[in-house]
Amino acid sequence: MQALVLEKTRQLSLREIDLPLDMGADDVTIAIDTVGICGSDVHYFTHGRIGPYVVNAPMVLGHEAAGTVTAIGANVKTLKVGDRVCMEPGIPDPSSRATRLGLYNVDPEVVFWATPPVHGCLTPQVVHPAAFTFKLPGNVSFAEGAMIEPLAVGMQAAAKAKIAPGDTALVIGAGPIGILTALAALAGGCARVLISDLQKTKLDIAAQYPGITPVDISKENLKTVIDETTKGWGVDVIFEASGSPKAFEGIFDLVRPSGVVVLVGMPVAPVTFDVVGAQAREIRIESVFRYAHVFDRALELIASGKIDVKPLITETFPFDQSIAAFERAAEGRPGDVKLQIKLAK
Amino acid sequence: MQALVLEKTRQLSLREIDLPLDMGADDVTIAIDTVGICGSDVHYFTHGRIGPYVVNAPMVLGHEAAGTVTAIGANVKTLKVGDRVCMEPGIPDPSSRATRLGLYNVDPEVVFWATPPVHGCLTPQVVHPAAFTFKLPGNVSFAEGAMIEPLAVGMQAAAKAKIAPGDTALVIGAGPIGILTALAALAGGCARVLISDLQKTKLDIAAQYPGITPVDISKENLKTVIDETTKGWGVDVIFEASGSPKAFEGIFDLVRPSGVVVLVGMPVAPVTFDVVGAQAREIRIESVFRYAHVFDRALELIASGKIDVKPLITETFPFDQSIAAFERAAEGRPGDVKLQIKLAK
Amino acid sequence: MQALVLEKTRQLSLREIDLPLDMGADDVTIAIDTVGICGSDVHYFTHGRIGPYVVNAPMVLGHEAAGTVTAIGANVKTLKVGDRVCMEPGIPDPSSRATRLGLYNVDPEVVFWATPPVHGCLTPQVVHPAAFTFKLPGNVSFAEGAMIEPLAVGMQAAAKAKIAPGDTALVIGAGPIGILTALAALAGGCARVLISDLQKTKLDIAAQYPGITPVDISKENLKTVIDETTKGWGVDVIFEASGSPKAFEGIFDLVRPSGVVVLVGMPVAPVTFDVVGAQAREIRIESVFRYAHVFDRALELIASGKIDVKPLITETFPFDQSIAAFERAAEGRPGDVKLQIKLAK
Amino acid sequence: MQALVLEKTRQLSLREIDLPLDMGADDVTIAIDTVGICGSDVHYFTHGRIGPYVVNAPMVLGHEAAGTVTAIGANVKTLKVGDRVCMEPGIPDPSSRATRLGLYNVDPEVVFWATPPVHGCLTPQVVHPAAFTFKLPGNVSFAEGAMIEPLAVGMQAAAKAKIAPGDTALVIGAGPIGILTALAALAGGCARVLISDLQKTKLDIAAQYPGITPVDISKENLKTVIDETTKGWGVDVIFEASGSPKAFEGIFDLVRPSGVVVLVGMPVAPVTFDVVGAQAREIRIESVFRYAHVFDRALELIASGKIDVKPLITETFPFDQSIAAFERAAEGRPGDVKLQIKLAK
Repeated sequence: MQALVLEKTRQLSLREIDLPLDMGADDVTIAIDTVGICGSDVHYFTHGRIGPYVVNAPMVLGHEAAGTVTAIGANVKTLKVGDRVCMEPGIPDPSSRATRLGLYNVDPEVVFWATPPVHGCLTPQVVHPAAFTFKLPGNVSFAEGAMIEPLAVGMQAAAKAKIAPGDTALVIGAGPIGILTALAALAGGCARVLISDLQKTKLDIAAQYPGITPVDISKENLKTVIDETTKGWGVDVIFEASGSPKAFEGIFDLVRPSGVVVLVGMPVAPVTFDVVGAQAREIRIESVFRYAHVFDRALELIASGKIDVKPLITETFPFDQSIAAFERAAEGRPGDVKLQIKLAK
Repeated sequence: MQALVLEKTRQLSLREIDLPLDMGADDVTIAIDTVGICGSDVHYFTHGRIGPYVVNAPMVLGHEAAGTVTAIGANVKTLKVGDRVCMEPGIPDPSSRATRLGLYNVDPEVVFWATPPVHGCLTPQVVHPAAFTFKLPGNVSFAEGAMIEPLAVGMQAAAKAKIAPGDTALVIGAGPIGILTALAALAGGCARVLISDLQKTKLDIAAQYPGITPVDISKENLKTVIDETTKGWGVDVIFEASGSPKAFEGIFDLVRPSGVVVLVGMPVAPVTFDVVGAQAREIRIESVFRYAHVFDRALELIASGKIDVKPLITETFPFDQSIAAFERAAEGRPGDVKLQIKLAK
Repeated sequence: MQALVLEKTRQLSLREIDLPLDMGADDVTIAIDTVGICGSDVHYFTHGRIGPYVVNAPMVLGHEAAGTVTAIGANVKTLKVGDRVCMEPGIPDPSSRATRLGLYNVDPEVVFWATPPVHGCLTPQVVHPAAFTFKLPGNVSFAEGAMIEPLAVGMQAAAKAKIAPGDTALVIGAGPIGILTALAALAGGCARVLISDLQKTKLDIAAQYPGITPVDISKENLKTVIDETTKGWGVDVIFEASGSPKAFEGIFDLVRPSGVVVLVGMPVAPVTFDVVGAQAREIRIESVFRYAHVFDRALELIASGKIDVKPLITETFPFDQSIAAFERAAEGRPGDVKLQIKLAK
Repeated sequence: MQALVLEKTRQLSLREIDLPLDMGADDVTIAIDTVGICGSDVHYFTHGRIGPYVVNAPMVLGHEAAGTVTAIGANVKTLKVGDRVCMEPGIPDPSSRATRLGLYNVDPEVVFWATPPVHGCLTPQVVHPAAFTFKLPGNVSFAEGAMIEPLAVGMQAAAKAKIAPGDTALVIGAGPIGILTALAALAGGCARVLISDLQKTKLDIAAQYPGITPVDISKENLKTVIDETTKGWGVDVIFEASGSPKAFEGIFDLVRPSGVVVLVGMPVAPVTFDVVGAQAREIRIESVFRYAHVFDRALELIASGKIDVKPLITETFPFDQSIAAFERAAEGRPGDVKLQIKLAK
């Protein structure tokens, strides 16, 4: 099987590799159409590791994927050959305590595409459990289907926030996850979302969406903007999507009494945290790890037109240009929200 | 003071009446601009009572209002003369146990416009507590401001449902409250809303909105439609907004396991209720009584463009045509969603 | 295999029957020690059916069981031979949508002991999934272990209520489930629980427990008692555990504004339900179907001494007296809370 | 009026001071019987300030009080002369946005006894709003009544945790608030509570209570104990009641997936916080500031016998020994849980 293989740090090959394609009774086989490049893919490419996860052997990259079902297992009733689909990249242990409680994303036994040593999906064909394969509605393209995975993180964040209809939210950080979280928050009940960043290019992309107000913190004081917007009350929800330790300075002063801070971004080191500041407003803090039970919901919101991810797909590369695509992604251009690779002809 | 007075059943006068206009330190005086006609106003007009509330003395009608602040009490800091505002018609007892818990709508001591024996606001000037008077954002008209009160009922229903982002809802009944609840549910996080009714005219009005799918139950079987739409799973939320006892037949079969039914409509008599049907799916049932703490949220959603109530304002009558307006409202034309009366010149 | 078999209505045999005892890799084999007699067992005995579930072929009764592990499947790591255990009688389909969400009790595909056509556990040996088999703490007897199943219903009810620490609850109906719900509510955070019934014998048994106050509604007016107890505010939670249509008359007048009614009892027919009464106080209504994820919690509460079920075990019959035990149970003596059958020697 | 006055750091007088005793229509006058000494009283005594709150003028100490109503205002209906009562020491602004939402504890305008510049209640007579004065049940002593205030902090923590019946909790820190939080958690639904501290004396006091298991972290590894107790799953809830920055090291590894950490203790400086550790288990974090709407609930739990605070009252001093009582409190003996001052003869 041809695949985009990370041989070791900074070394990619588009080459044949032996991948398991045995389809069980509850599985489907999928011809991959489109795969998005995620920041984690790029990080493995440039650093060879993320925290405890180290690339010690050649690994196929990619976990944001959509494609077409080409075969189904004997037990599969929810899908048929020819169905256009997208896939959840993580497969939990169904018998684990967390999974049985419905919390499969925090199951420590989860097997996740392109997290070492598990191969990803930048290859023309994969086998996947039907239970984690979702049919695309007719009006959702493969490119949009491959955006469901990163959108799902924003959906998880929006669900954890327990948004009340008409809430005002602040998203800190206008990277891909920040913008997708803002879209999920708006679709999920917020009246409006402020988004803060230091980079005008990113803010301009976010500001295309009605309901999103950019705050350029290289020029404006965030606390002042929040106070003016909310008449000193504070926002109902903050989504911390920057992972920057600086974001935690004074963060609780931006939230209304009894408001919520959702931790989406993953700081590379422990942060300094003002416990008393949180207590003074009895802030609730939620933390997000991937997602559970939201792919179908994300698909519904795209199908119904409440979320439009198309403006976030910056450029699409053919499969044979995958390495160039990763090199471009590694540049980290602020205007590149999502680069995708098209495998199907 | 000139006012639209319900003298007794079926007898309205537009006449002078003595109304208290003493403004306390926490009050504001408001020149009324626009008042919507509510089904309850019409019911007092046609029946002289609603349940235990009986019109025993002449009473000014109207409780859906917007206007302009003309004077403010000594303690008022949140409003100033000239502010365009809308008002919550119910004033709770601030020292009651329910109010102190934040549940002021279920305070039995609440004093509510146009609920006997309390006068309503179909009169050019009223005095009202600043705490229940809300400044209209610049892009929200008086006519929209006077729609906040009925929208608030839908907002309360949407809040009670605890919508998860991407939920599918069914609203039973496409009257004004049904449609406003559908809009609140969509703005509050639903991906899409089905709305069912027997009258095509009402459904056609609802169907103008993207995200709302009409179900004409004079022609289609509701269970079949729901099963097809949700692949047999059921909707996440039902908003019962018809008040019809028939709506309760088989209602729980339409909801997904662990879903919710929100009781918005008020049946005139107790209904027959299938306890075991609710248990088999562990349905949660929420009930709604007016609203609390949602006027500012409703205003945010209109100001941000997430809810558009303008298509629901069917016709506007000048104040001196108030009686004609009520007679028209009493006809109950299916195409009349909201009739309003314009008091300001 | 010897077993207590319901041949048809009113006809029991203690006889040999062929039962499947193939143990899969995720299963354990259990020597049954004690089985409690449930109202549903008795109802199948006396009526041959419960609603849509009809006994069309001989069926082994019993689903409240504790015993000792005698063999374990290849994959089982949580249990070992010799472990004293109790068992959840329902086995859901792990791949169903409800089960994957963690809501396995409302999975329509669940296979449940002694619900036709599935055999129960009144037989010396059973095979069961390890995932639904729970080790008894050292200080929990088999007799107590066989009480976990009915207690679990009360635990589910208490969990659904979302009790706030110090709540006051009313349980309607002092049958076995009513008393066990009262104990779960007290252990689960209530300061005190009132329990109402028409039968003094049942109330006397409930009243043995500190924290439970009996209300004999053959002599006292329930509304009056609640008003006195709560100074007119109403109880925070009602657990409806009688299944009596009469219990629904005026039920919402007993609850505080924004309180909750949990539907535990299963009325034989639809009830009359006062929607407006629920709305006037914005009552939340929860419904309970069996239980999910509470067996371990029930065991913890018994092990820690917070719940004592021993006074509720009225009498224990040897296995060879099983038919006599069922005849006694069918008498419905008010003082018989729980009759158990001891299979082990 | 005689009172215990903090003149400045480390200087107390028991002397006459002019205190306002004007009783409004919604107020009551109370003869103080018993006042507990809180750590904050002691901190003002020894340091003259707590964070931004500085003692710049003589201030009466004390805010944990019980007494007897001696006069009532014209509007007061819930209390009468002779009623034995305890009092919430904080009086919010009823018109503030937080208070109207029911969140009066996070109202920045709250006026709180013995928080500079507001006088406390270590004086024979005070005037207080009836709404914040609670009648003691007949079986609750004044000494117990004066324990409600610190218990209320534990109650608030237990309420925020949203304990599910049968949860296992860990309380970090066995000071007065830690022990009271453990008692609230047990009464509020936990099956058992582990409590950790470095001081054996404190742990021995906590361990008197059934359901509380002490963990001496000077000798045992907390992670090891938790893993053994919960079979590696983690506790459902942690109450951080030490305020020690060290408590935050590895704290999330002690909690089960989707568990909760409640921040009760107030560290003197920002702490180091492992965001990724929280995310890996999707931990929810709640923060507590004083309490709201829990005094009546705490009283119910004491009256019903579910919480017994009497073993925590170490010693009682007569009013004329108040200064000695404070000097003793300032010693910080580990066996001194609560010292109280008895003003009534």
